[in-house]
Amino acid sequence: MLCGMQAHDGPLTRLRKSHEQSVLDLLRKHGPLSRAELGTHSGLSRTTLYDIVAGLVEGGAVVASTPPAEVRRRGRPVEKLSLNPDAGEAIGIDFARRAVHVSAVNVAHEMIGSASEAHAADLPWAQRADIAERLLGTLGGSGQAGPARNGPAEGPRPGTLRLGSLSAIGVGVVGPITDPGGAEARALSIDGLPGLLRERFGVPVLLDNNTRLAALAEAVWGAASDGGDVLYLRLSHGVGGGLVVGGSLHRGMYGMSGEFGHITVDPQGAPCECGGTGCLETVASLDAVLHRYRSAGGRAEDIAAFLSAAAAGDRIAHAVLEQVGTDIGMVLAAVSNAVGPGVIVIGGELAQAGAALIEPVERALRTHVMPMVRNQVRVRRATLGDAGSALGGIALVLHESPLLSRYPQPVTEELAWTQ
Amino acid sequence: MLCGMQAHDGPLTRLRKSHEQSVLDLLRKHGPLSRAELGTHSGLSRTTLYDIVAGLVEGGAVVASTPPAEVRRRGRPVEKLSLNPDAGEAIGIDFARRAVHVSAVNVAHEMIGSASEAHAADLPWAQRADIAERLLGTLGGSGQAGPARNGPAEGPRPGTLRLGSLSAIGVGVVGPITDPGGAEARALSIDGLPGLLRERFGVPVLLDNNTRLAALAEAVWGAASDGGDVLYLRLSHGVGGGLVVGGSLHRGMYGMSGEFGHITVDPQGAPCECGGTGCLETVASLDAVLHRYRSAGGRAEDIAAFLSAAAAGDRIAHAVLEQVGTDIGMVLAAVSNAVGPGVIVIGGELAQAGAALIEPVERALRTHVMPMVRNQVRVRRATLGDAGSALGGIALVLHESPLLSRYPQPVTEELAWTQ
Repeated sequence: MLCGMQAHDGPLTRLRKSHEQSVLDLLRKHGPLSRAELGTHSGLSRTTLYDIVAGLVEGGAVVASTPPAEVRRRGRPVEKLSLNPDAGEAIGIDFARRAVHVSAVNVAHEMIGSASEAHAADLPWAQRADIAERLLGTLGGSGQAGPARNGPAEGPRPGTLRLGSLSAIGVGVVGPITDPGGAEARALSIDGLPGLLRERFGVPVLLDNNTRLAALAEAVWGAASDGGDVLYLRLSHGVGGGLVVGGSLHRGMYGMSGEFGHITVDPQGAPCECGGTGCLETVASLDAVLHRYRSAGGRAEDIAAFLSAAAAGDRIAHAVLEQVGTDIGMVLAAVSNAVGPGVIVIGGELAQAGAALIEPVERALRTHVMPMVRNQVRVRRATLGDAGSALGGIALVLHESPLLSRYPQPVTEELAWTQ
Repeated sequence: MLCGMQAHDGPLTRLRKSHEQSVLDLLRKHGPLSRAELGTHSGLSRTTLYDIVAGLVEGGAVVASTPPAEVRRRGRPVEKLSLNPDAGEAIGIDFARRAVHVSAVNVAHEMIGSASEAHAADLPWAQRADIAERLLGTLGGSGQAGPARNGPAEGPRPGTLRLGSLSAIGVGVVGPITDPGGAEARALSIDGLPGLLRERFGVPVLLDNNTRLAALAEAVWGAASDGGDVLYLRLSHGVGGGLVVGGSLHRGMYGMSGEFGHITVDPQGAPCECGGTGCLETVASLDAVLHRYRSAGGRAEDIAAFLSAAAAGDRIAHAVLEQVGTDIGMVLAAVSNAVGPGVIVIGGELAQAGAALIEPVERALRTHVMPMVRNQVRVRRATLGDAGSALGGIALVLHESPLLSRYPQPVTEELAWTQ
């Protein structure tokens, strides 16, 4: 054998999930259907279908209801099955440094809601998880969120998020960060977090860097939602980013991708916290920009003051942004030549400088990118704010859960399949 | 709706393909099965299963046979279904500049064989397709390859490649190349090729750059077959490459990814054919290396002579390789920081210089890559030769056909799914 199927689940589990997906797909497309209609459309045997539907109803993803008496023509009323609009299909949680952000979508992929709460930077994980659970309980109405299997089976209560049909939770955290020393130096290790969340919600937990999740959210619902692969660059206290490739967030072999801040822009440059020399972060982080501005004679207490000066037309500030933007554009060109993104999204505080930064970025990009794509790659500012990473967590679940791993179809297939 | 399923096929076609996949999977795992056993394992209704099996038998992917009389216990013999070892599941064709290479695997994913034939550079596509078809006919034995549906149904003939159950053909071509002018200047446009092949073989055609397909093949069966994302760099007359991300070949938004040869290494460097300045290709192509060698006083008629000199310990040659390797390592570090590959594979003629090139590449790479992965990223020489791109065509089909799009499971899922 050259190669064989590799799967984490056994064939029966995969088959069951495939059948569940078929049934959910049919209910999404056709609306309420009887068991007989589901049988006809799905091609599943009566026994298999009964079993699959029972599991979906028990999990809360699907609800059974009988049409009102006056609609019945004759004989026994036929029960119809439909998606439960209050069933949480996927939840996103962003554990930022000093706040928890949550978002949820239902089984029809409609947004149920988002919520946030600030907290102290040193709050332990268990209490952060408490906040997340409480915030989720507020979504969709007044009810308490909780595993549906814990209590007696009830009909759907409008406005109450039911977690029993959750397929997974997507979670953003600060880190894995740019170097192992830094990771170990963090006040809070994330080691216990996945187990804690898995125990609390009873479903798989997908964990990723929250900057990377913000990249995914920009690709799915933000500045790059019109499709295509995305290069997301975040210019903040650190310089990082993320890549969305073929409709999926790209993690890299060691969870270390999107480290645009540590691409060398000057081999003779300043030492970087990562241990390297002349990394982009040494010239484009907020501190580096402030330092360069002050060294050139500018006066600003913080980055807000610098941005105000730039907005007021301060020539030193513009010169600094011109230099920084050129270095950024060079790095973006190198990455673009390697990866070929459709859209480049720039977020983080420095992006608020607007055209004074974006224009030199675009000039340098277009000078160094392959001529064939010079006028095709688009550069845009990020549009999602604080909720970005929690939304990214949901997008991660929708893309990676076994139920939805092929959603949406990667753009690459459209390009490749010749009709 | 935030988002919905997007699919190229209708739901019924997708469902049918999913059922076909289930049946083929079961036969791969269990060996020969009766219809009743298939029904039990698959959960499909008798009617659906009969229909699916009939299609697979008609297409030649599955064969029905009755065990010998002495094995029968009682009553009517039970027909068993099994995969047809002579059924081509996927074919790869590399239309190189002056040769056609073909390879094929059967429905059990076993290699049926490979074959090559040289031709003149200006041979029209129709005649190149003739060569490909003839070469395919020689695979697996003496029989003629051809669509199984064209003739009366026959049992499998051992040693004859049957194309009736082909899911797709993966095809490598020279291009899309590095600039549009160059593409238009090619003697042969590829415009008519996909239609020609589709008409001849009656299945979808997946077309890609053959360097990129070589990258995929190295990832699946070559130097990087131990898994993980791959950065493949080809150092030849041009400098190009490919990225394998999450188990799939990455194309980029405009089919322009893996253009490592056009990443700037010296903004004040030599003009490049692409229109840029100081691209890696201006220092690392075979011509550039020869030019630098001669400028430094070295004497070599061609790259073979240069490689011989280097192998014999020529100091000028080693100094040139040291400089070139350093530039290559810088570019590989930048791309690694962005993409996070597990393995870097270096192919093309210049890779034959061995350690004299690879060592400076590795030094520069480790100096400029993120410290966290400094000792994890592996650099290797390519191991597949001329057949690489045709094998890559097969890998493309196995990864991208609807039947096998989830094979193998991306490594990223292993990292992400918390148990």
